[in-house]
Amino acid sequence: MDIRTPDWVKDAVFYQIFPDRFAQSVRVAKANHLQAWGELPTFHKYQGGDLLGVVERLDHIASLGVNALYFCPVFQSASNHRYHTHDYYQVDPMLGGNDALREVIDAAHARGIRVVLDGVFNHASRGFFQFNDLLEQGQDSAYLDWFHAGPFPLSAYDDSKPANYAAWWGNRALPKFNTDTQAVREFLWKVAEYWMQMGIDGWRLDVPNEIDDDEFWREFRRRVKAINPEAYIVGEIWGDAHRWLEGDQFDAVMNYPFTRPCIAYFGVDSIDNRMNEASGTGHVDPIDTAGFAQRMLQVSQMYAPEIVQAQMNLLDSHDTARFISVVGGDHGAHRLALAFQLTYVGAPCLYYGDEIGLPGGPDPDCRRAFPWNDEASWQQDTLTLIRTLTAARHASKALQRGTFGVLYADHDLLIYSRISGSEAAYVLMNTAQDVQKAPLTGMKPGTFRDVLSGT
Amino acid sequence: MDIRTPDWVKDAVFYQIFPDRFAQSVRVAKANHLQAWGELPTFHKYQGGDLLGVVERLDHIASLGVNALYFCPVFQSASNHRYHTHDYYQVDPMLGGNDALREVIDAAHARGIRVVLDGVFNHASRGFFQFNDLLEQGQDSAYLDWFHAGPFPLSAYDDSKPANYAAWWGNRALPKFNTDTQAVREFLWKVAEYWMQMGIDGWRLDVPNEIDDDEFWREFRRRVKAINPEAYIVGEIWGDAHRWLEGDQFDAVMNYPFTRPCIAYFGVDSIDNRMNEASGTGHVDPIDTAGFAQRMLQVSQMYAPEIVQAQMNLLDSHDTARFISVVGGDHGAHRLALAFQLTYVGAPCLYYGDEIGLPGGPDPDCRRAFPWNDEASWQQDTLTLIRTLTAARHASKALQRGTFGVLYADHDLLIYSRISGSEAAYVLMNTAQDVQKAPLTGMKPGTFRDVLSGT
Repeated sequence: MDIRTPDWVKDAVFYQIFPDRFAQSVRVAKANHLQAWGELPTFHKYQGGDLLGVVERLDHIASLGVNALYFCPVFQSASNHRYHTHDYYQVDPMLGGNDALREVIDAAHARGIRVVLDGVFNHASRGFFQFNDLLEQGQDSAYLDWFHAGPFPLSAYDDSKPANYAAWWGNRALPKFNTDTQAVREFLWKVAEYWMQMGIDGWRLDVPNEIDDDEFWREFRRRVKAINPEAYIVGEIWGDAHRWLEGDQFDAVMNYPFTRPCIAYFGVDSIDNRMNEASGTGHVDPIDTAGFAQRMLQVSQMYAPEIVQAQMNLLDSHDTARFISVVGGDHGAHRLALAFQLTYVGAPCLYYGDEIGLPGGPDPDCRRAFPWNDEASWQQDTLTLIRTLTAARHASKALQRGTFGVLYADHDLLIYSRISGSEAAYVLMNTAQDVQKAPLTGMKPGTFRDVLSGT
Repeated sequence: MDIRTPDWVKDAVFYQIFPDRFAQSVRVAKANHLQAWGELPTFHKYQGGDLLGVVERLDHIASLGVNALYFCPVFQSASNHRYHTHDYYQVDPMLGGNDALREVIDAAHARGIRVVLDGVFNHASRGFFQFNDLLEQGQDSAYLDWFHAGPFPLSAYDDSKPANYAAWWGNRALPKFNTDTQAVREFLWKVAEYWMQMGIDGWRLDVPNEIDDDEFWREFRRRVKAINPEAYIVGEIWGDAHRWLEGDQFDAVMNYPFTRPCIAYFGVDSIDNRMNEASGTGHVDPIDTAGFAQRMLQVSQMYAPEIVQAQMNLLDSHDTARFISVVGGDHGAHRLALAFQLTYVGAPCLYYGDEIGLPGGPDPDCRRAFPWNDEASWQQDTLTLIRTLTAARHASKALQRGTFGVLYADHDLLIYSRISGSEAAYVLMNTAQDVQKAPLTGMKPGTFRDVLSGT
């Protein structure tokens, strides 16, 4: 099968936003019972970030060289992370509602910034309309076939009884759709179409492997691409994803196989595995330079080049401890990892706050409010490095789309290339504390510019 | 205070529709688990009526002389009567969604038919978003002050525990809004404004006395009338309503004080009080002609003339047994009552199916599906009488707006007048089985037309 992924993704730098914690606008009315902005996150409390806050921070976002936003869920949901969807057609009122998303899309597009939303299609929530009908009518519900439910009544809020309906990982807060029912399939596909027509640039798919139905995702792709052939479809698949990356389902996946070696290598001296073990990441054993180079070569060749160029490469996310905390607060290690991420093949995805070295352990701690009013806490070197390297990436076809090659990988020295046709970029990484001499063999002849010094 | 009620209401004949049971359109997708159309209603099952079905039956409705529709709730709700609102901004998907209401409004307006919706503002449902947030977050909810709730967790679905939140008549399915919270007030007012802007012609207010706050309703009126000064605001108040009918809150109320004497008089020989006792109507003692005349004189003078002319006069509703069943199936008695309703002061409101003598006991039996495919069951005489009398009413300012006076009321003979300026109409009712001679004294001199014979 012919594999085609969106061109813009190959040149994209993503910025992942957790909407409740990124920024607040005074233009969105605030509930009376919010946790104060910047308090340590809890599983249930809201801090009241909103989407107009994002619009008002687009200068900051653009200054990072970011040209694509990936939002954690924005639809109406009775949960601060909004993975428990209550209404797929409404942006959460606390975020500013549908009008606020309209403004985000328009303001972002005006700056050449794409917008990707998180689609949670495997399961809904206990308050979701058709599931609520099961709670209210039981066996008499019109929507009996929308979920895998029964016998009735359902023990949706009674933890002392088994959840008598299918739910994501048995979590009764997340009833799983019965995607064998045609009305449910159409419902979910139409949601995808609706927001595409609203102008979003793609979907990040939450736990899509749980909908164990390739034809569901094929039709999903057909409908999304019919509206915008350049739409990006990126699945949350933590392991091998070949099944979905044959060209007929997803364009790419969240590249956690990229994440783990970065932790293993850049965090080699400081890795805090309690952080990983409590995250989706899992325990990570340190590796040396050669091992890292080999793993990264593999990662760059796991899928067809069209796919690899469109992978979403991340160091951390709302589902993991933050990289800076995983490496024990070693900002040097964090910056090396960021430098690698921003010069590797595939689309880098910065998790909001990474650019200032915001710390955070596993969920919910990795979802702290952005400290806009505490600039003293910002890691300015990290911010500067990101701006420098995204600028370099945008200026170099080789850094954006070039193949990944390793020239040298031994002890604390890693040299790799990115080659695109006649263009080449080389990255030298010294993970030691001391200055080292690098053997510059295997490089193409010519004049090179040092993107860090600018000379 | 100057009292002004909408002019159009004074000339209106309403038709009340219970959306799940009036008509189905093939243009609205049907759920797989519906009760068959026409089966005896239950408390929980859906039969799948929809709003496009209403559009497709407008010929029938218009043929009745109806020029205003009053819909039982149409918003998304996990209940077949839709009084348990899940989303105030969405027309229920089973009804065809917002687009279907758009079509109803446009098609009705094109025929000069007004559209009034049922507004359920005192309480929401367990699946309503902000209440669902209380179930999901408990004490950590951002919406703590939207309801009168706590301590947490709430026992919303556990009947073995007390409902630890305020609910309508203690019904835990209907959590009562905390209308002292400004955000809640604004929310409800904005809902009212939203649908007014969509083009509806007014609101029937469900249990408005439960929001014990005149200023809430004053502001409600100000906002609704600001959008359409001719909007109709009619409250569901079963008893004395002076508090709300001073010109600054409602235009009128559902005139149940009109209903009871009609049952008592026209049903005098056949009244089935089991029906009334199980309805909001309550036990009704029979009365004689003189008693009826006196009661109806009182009812016509209870409020300012502007109010009386705008009252919604009903023989039955979704909340009572049907009149035909209350009078033991006596279609003659039903027709006399209809004749009285259609010639009395105030806007008559026909409950869907009344025009064909559809029977039905107390809720849920009074909500049977309209038997479109069983015309043999229709009372053609009832249908013809309604058409004749609504035509007469629309042709006579006296019947529409005239004052009500009694000329004769004794034994089985009732003669009353409707006088508007120089126009007069007289109604002679013989409730006996035999022909009677009527004393035509007290009538204005002139030539009169008999609307029943046309001569």
